[in-house]
This record gives sequence, C-alpha cells and structure tokens, in this order.
Amino acid sequence: MRTVDVIARKRAGEELSAAEIDSLVSGYARGEVPDYQMSAWLMAACLRGLTGAETAALTSAIVSSGRVIDWTGRLSNVVDKHSSGGVGDKTSLVVVPMVAALGVPVAKMSGRGLGFTGGTLDKLESIPGLRVRLSIAEMQTQVERIGLAIVAQSAELAPADGKLYALRDATATVDYLPLIASSIMGKKIAGGAQGIVLDVKAGDGAFMTEVENARALAGCMLELGRRAGRRVRAVVSSMESPLGYAVGNSLEVAEALATLRGQGPADLLELCLVLGSQMLVLAGATRDEEEARRSLKGALASGAALGKLRQLVAAQGGQTAVVDDPGLLPRSPVVHTVAAPRGGFVARLSARAVAETVRHLGGGRARKEDDIDRSVGVVLLAKPDAAVEKGQPLCVVHAADLPAAEGATSSLLAAFDIAPEPPRIGPLVIDQIG
Amino acid sequence: MRTVDVIARKRAGEELSAAEIDSLVSGYARGEVPDYQMSAWLMAACLRGLTGAETAALTSAIVSSGRVIDWTGRLSNVVDKHSSGGVGDKTSLVVVPMVAALGVPVAKMSGRGLGFTGGTLDKLESIPGLRVRLSIAEMQTQVERIGLAIVAQSAELAPADGKLYALRDATATVDYLPLIASSIMGKKIAGGAQGIVLDVKAGDGAFMTEVENARALAGCMLELGRRAGRRVRAVVSSMESPLGYAVGNSLEVAEALATLRGQGPADLLELCLVLGSQMLVLAGATRDEEEARRSLKGALASGAALGKLRQLVAAQGGQTAVVDDPGLLPRSPVVHTVAAPRGGFVARLSARAVAETVRHLGGGRARKEDDIDRSVGVVLLAKPDAAVEKGQPLCVVHAADLPAAEGATSSLLAAFDIAPEPPRIGPLVIDQIG
Repeated sequence: MRTVDVIARKRAGEELSAAEIDSLVSGYARGEVPDYQMSAWLMAACLRGLTGAETAALTSAIVSSGRVIDWTGRLSNVVDKHSSGGVGDKTSLVVVPMVAALGVPVAKMSGRGLGFTGGTLDKLESIPGLRVRLSIAEMQTQVERIGLAIVAQSAELAPADGKLYALRDATATVDYLPLIASSIMGKKIAGGAQGIVLDVKAGDGAFMTEVENARALAGCMLELGRRAGRRVRAVVSSMESPLGYAVGNSLEVAEALATLRGQGPADLLELCLVLGSQMLVLAGATRDEEEARRSLKGALASGAALGKLRQLVAAQGGQTAVVDDPGLLPRSPVVHTVAAPRGGFVARLSARAVAETVRHLGGGRARKEDDIDRSVGVVLLAKPDAAVEKGQPLCVVHAADLPAAEGATSSLLAAFDIAPEPPRIGPLVIDQIG
Repeated sequence: MRTVDVIARKRAGEELSAAEIDSLVSGYARGEVPDYQMSAWLMAACLRGLTGAETAALTSAIVSSGRVIDWTGRLSNVVDKHSSGGVGDKTSLVVVPMVAALGVPVAKMSGRGLGFTGGTLDKLESIPGLRVRLSIAEMQTQVERIGLAIVAQSAELAPADGKLYALRDATATVDYLPLIASSIMGKKIAGGAQGIVLDVKAGDGAFMTEVENARALAGCMLELGRRAGRRVRAVVSSMESPLGYAVGNSLEVAEALATLRGQGPADLLELCLVLGSQMLVLAGATRDEEEARRSLKGALASGAALGKLRQLVAAQGGQTAVVDDPGLLPRSPVVHTVAAPRGGFVARLSARAVAETVRHLGGGRARKEDDIDRSVGVVLLAKPDAAVEKGQPLCVVHAADLPAAEGATSSLLAAFDIAPEPPRIGPLVIDQIG
C-alpha cells in the first residue's frame, strides 16, 4: 500500500485497517515513511478521529517497533504503575516498596519531569549515587532478586513512541486523547508487566484539567491494555492542589521517606493505599481492597516497606544512609518563610502555580536537555480548607539565592487564595475504573 | 511567532492573520520551517478550511517567495491565459497568436503534461528546435519585439509553489480548492500579466469532474486575482470528451495549425473565440465580445494569426517550415484504424480513457521525470452525437509498434459508448464569470 493513500483515507474520515496502520508506523520507525507524511497523518487523525480499533492498532504498532520485556519463566505476576503526571506526586516512591514488601514484584518504568510536572527519576536521583539507567537484563535480575526496581524506560522499548512524540510536539498534535493513550500504553505494554495500575490526574496541576477528559483517557487506556491481554485498573485523582506538602525533588524524597515511616501527609498516604490496593488485587495477592489496605498499613508499620526502599537504593548504587537520615539529601542555601498577608481560609492553592514556581527556582525543565537543581522547592504549611491568621507561615521556599527566593515568594502569594469562608473541597480519589 | 502555535490555531479552526501565514510560507520557502510542520498545517487547512482572506495571504506569500515580472515602462496591457488542464486542449497554440495578431501582447507561461492531462510545452516542443526555456529577460524582449511568447514558467517565479506542490502530492493534500487556487494564481500573479483569462475545465477529463467545483474554483481564483490588483475573467468549459479530434503532442500541433488556417474543429474554434474575446476585452483592445469575435475571425482569415505563430516559432528557435507543412512533425511508424463494433450513435466518449490510452502509448507522463514520445496519439473520427455504421472508422491510433497499437485499440473501443439513440449533449462553454 502507498503511504499517501493511507493518509488520504484518514483525511476522508475512513477507518483504517490494522495492516494499514502497522505499515505506516513500522515504516516510520524504520525511517522509510518520512516525518512529513507522518505529521500529515497525525493531523488528519486528530481532526477526523481514530476509532477504538485504530487506536489499538496504533498501540500495537508502537509496541512492535522495539523489544517487549518477557517475564516468562521468571516471575508470573509483575505489576507496573503509571501516573499521568502531577505536582508533588511522589506516590511511586512510597507505593512501589509497600507493594513489593507484600511479595508482589514491581518493575516500575519511569520518566523525567518536563514542563510543570515532576518525574520520579529526577526525584530518585536526589539520592547520591543512585542509578536509574539499568539495562533490561539488570532490571529483570534485580526484580527477581529483591522484588522491585524503579528505572528509566529503556530506549529499546517502543522506539516509535519517542519519535512520534517529538513530531507531535512540533506539529501541534499532542493533545488528542487516542494519541496520548497509545503513547502511554505502548510503553507500558512493551514494559512487560502483566498488571498495570494507572493514576490519571485531573485538575489545575494536571495535563487534563477536566475530570471528564481524565475519565475518558482512563477508559481509553484500560481498553488498550485489555486488548493487549494485560490486567489493568485506573484511578482518577484530583490534582487541584499539590499532593502532600513538598514540591521539589529532594524535598519530595524526604516526604516519601516520612510517609514510609508512618509520618506522611494524609492525602499522599490515602492515594498510596488506593493505588497499592489496586496493584495487590490485580496481582491476585489479596482477596479484596479492604484486605489489601490492611496489609499495606501493616507493611508501613512493620518497617518492611521502608526496608524495601533501602534494598532498592542499595541495589541501584545509592547511599542507603539517606533512607534513615533525609538530612543527607541535597539542601538549598536559602530557606525563606512566606507569611499569610491576611487571615481567613485557604480557599484555593493552584498546583500549577506552585509547580511553575519550583521550575523557576531551577527544580524543573522547560526543555528536555535542561539541567535541574534537585535541592530547591517549596514545602507547604497550609493547604485548602486550613484556617490561617495574618502573618502565619503559609509555606517555606528552598532556593539557590535570595533573589530567587524573593521571586518565588511573590508568585506563591499569588498562588494562595485566602477567603473569609472555608471552601468546598472535592474528593481526592474521584473514580476507580476497571 | 512560533510555527507550532500557528499550526495549533489552524487545527483549532481559527482564522490566521496575513502575518502568520506569511511567516509560515516564507519560512518554508527559506528552508527554516521543515516539511513536517508545513504538511501538518496543510492537512489542518484542508480539514478546518481557509477563509478568503487566508487564501489571499497564502497566494501573496507564494508570490513573494520569488521574483515578480514587471512590465512597467515596457508594455502596458500584457495578458496571460491559463487552462486547468484537459484532454486535446491545444487552445493556447491557437488563441495566443490570434490575440497577438490583434496587437495585444501575450506572455504565456505554460506547464508540462502530468498524469492524464497534456501540457502546452510538450506540444510546442514537437516542433524541431523550438526552445521553451527562456530567461525572463529573453521572454520580455521577445514579447516587446513580436508581441507573443509561450515559455516554461521560470523557476525564479513563486518557488514556494513548487515546494508546496511536491509536499501536497506526498501528503494527500492536493485536492483542496483554496490550495489549488492559490497555487495557480500565485504563479500567474508572479508572471506579471495585467490581465489573466482562466479556462476552468469540468468533466470526466478534467481535475474537477463536477461543474459546481469548477465554478467554485473559478470564483476563488477570480477573487485572488482581483485582490492582487489584476484584471481577471474566467470561463467554465466542458471536458467530457476531448477538445477537437487530435490527442497527442504532434497531432495536436497539426490540428492547431489547421485551426489557424481556418480548417479546425468547430468546438476547438469556438472555445478559442470565447477565450480570445475575453483576453481582448480584458486588455481593452475591443469594446465588447461581439467586436472581439469579429476581429479574431478576421485575424484567422487574413493569415495574421498563423503569421504570429510563425514569428513565435522563429523567435524561439524552431523550424518555421513546420508551420506550413505539418508533415514535418514527428510521425509514428504504425498508424492503425479502429472500426465501430456496431452501428448507432456515439453516446459518450470518455476524455479520461482517451488520455490514458495516449499516455500508455508513450505520449504522457506518469511521473515528472518520464520521457515522452511526441509522435504518438489518437485522432478521433467520431465524437458524441455522431451516427456511425458497423465497421465505420471511429478513430486512428498512431503508435510506436503494433502491440502498442493493439493495446490502444481495445482501450479505445471501451472508451466509446455506442447506443441506439442520440445522446443529450451539454454546452461546451458552461459559464463565463468576471
């Protein structure tokens, strides 16, 4: 078949066959279909739409463009977890060791932060010496030996996705739901886990600001996972305000460690219990979510979860002393407290604004190749619904220098909305699907 | 402005400013905007649409990508003529010398045949020695001296168009009316003629098979010409059957010469009179079309029109003897008559099928770089509405060898539809606009 005819059929709004989509995507991955034909097809797909079958074929073609990790003959119930990206989202650092502590192997493929969202790899690398770039063989051996790994997605997996994503980024074809879903699920399916739990964020600090779009993305990804023969569940969770109190790489690792010691923020702990329960149920390790929650709390209380993180840090070459003494994490020279300009209730706290502040402090990336400062960030002291008095500390800025701290202070004051009445706050976990 | 934002705005269906479109197209012409961004924009334009103002801005950007021929201080009423492409369409070879014979300078920029349509340059080059690649300065000097030229479009004019057309061809974005109109008019406006007559073909042997689409294309091109300050008129003409009797390069030149001697087919002569009248009226050379028709017939009868063609052939280096002895044109070794398989009326004769037959004989191109055989073709002896008896000759095939002639015979028999009743035939000139 000729590529131009496949483009013409999509332009005309026709449904393409799996063979047509595979020919297009595999040709693109091999460099035989040029960027300009693929970008025309992507635009036609965004404007004419892709059916469920087309989206599944696209995902399958992305998977087939590279290696697929095979656990056959090694472990039978490996699970993975994916978050669509948020602010202060350090759940992976807590939930992966909790689940592994209960005997369910977790092979977590993570990404880096980009734009306003953070990335698990950047956070983990706050721990001196820790390596996230493991070969697939190293990663598999580690999961077999200690039951968990958190590593960078291998470039051998779903290479078509990286090439497609760069093209979409340059051609205004990023924000179309079936393309987003196939990109995420293509990588997850190639990652080889039998069970996949998806945390799709909705709100001010998420890619999907509307709950309905987040729910639709979750539904689309569940369908793709099932068509590929994987067990999949999804949680839709709120990302209006940052999750927990800490935003910034080192500060978030410290908060994750506190949570593993039973001293974490209530919202972070709750989301970790929900996601962890889903993972345990998917793996068939517990009968139901109630039993799963009890087991997970037990793994925290016994120190088994913290012990698993210590094993991960050791296996991946990091300083294990950090696990017991977060004071060893990178620290900023300037620590500045931001006071409430008036009394009232915190009515709203924009996750997006906090994230942009941290990025300006040097803690995030505008472009993929940017360096980041892992020590900087913000620790919130008041979140929505809290009553505050004038002059009371609202948050603490960790910055490289005084001018940066002052810039952050004014943008944080704008991020807090203090009102005379307490706000109506929506639920953290909006929906569980699958 | 960022190119990706311009693409995103068109994807969202917003109207772009002239500055945005100019930035995109001029960046593309300079090689700063890559093919993959332009093709995404082209697909978004096809599916979301371009407004009249956007189409005008696109045309203007195409014009600005190269030189614009300037007749200031040389000639004040230069006219050009454009056909949207048909089968057996040798009107330029007749109408250009007719109009020039009446003192109106004609600078005709032509193209080559591609796919099923023929091209004036290919036809002219049947005359031994004739050059069509003149520099702009040579062409201008020739028009000043003898009043006419038929030359290849200079590569210095509207270079963005060639680049855009190649990209559209590979990305299924050719057949969108505003893109077609801006491509044609961008070249015509850069060509510098003050008056432009457009012949938009509709039917089986045209790019636009539907009359309504041809009329819409004509309207769009008229609007673009007017916005650029040119005088423009358009004719919508039928291309259901071939124009005249001859299809094939040498054979069409011979028919054009016969027409200039007053011995041409009625349909060809009529279209030449209509187009020529429009050109004379646009140039202000005659009061109205009636007077124009009389003058044009006079230029045929006096031999002045044939004399102008002889001057053109001489000026462009061709053998002038051909003008008086068409037997000197390239001739095919095999000449084969096709007989009517039964009696009745010719109800339909597919222009497209005749054209494809000639292309298979070697007289047309599948790809731009293909060589062609200028001697081959078909001369029709019966066209729709003619009564034929069984065994009577329908047409004559001119071929390079016997197998080619036999292949052409069977495809020509399929192109003729012979029915017991005479057909209803539509008008040749469907509409005149502007």
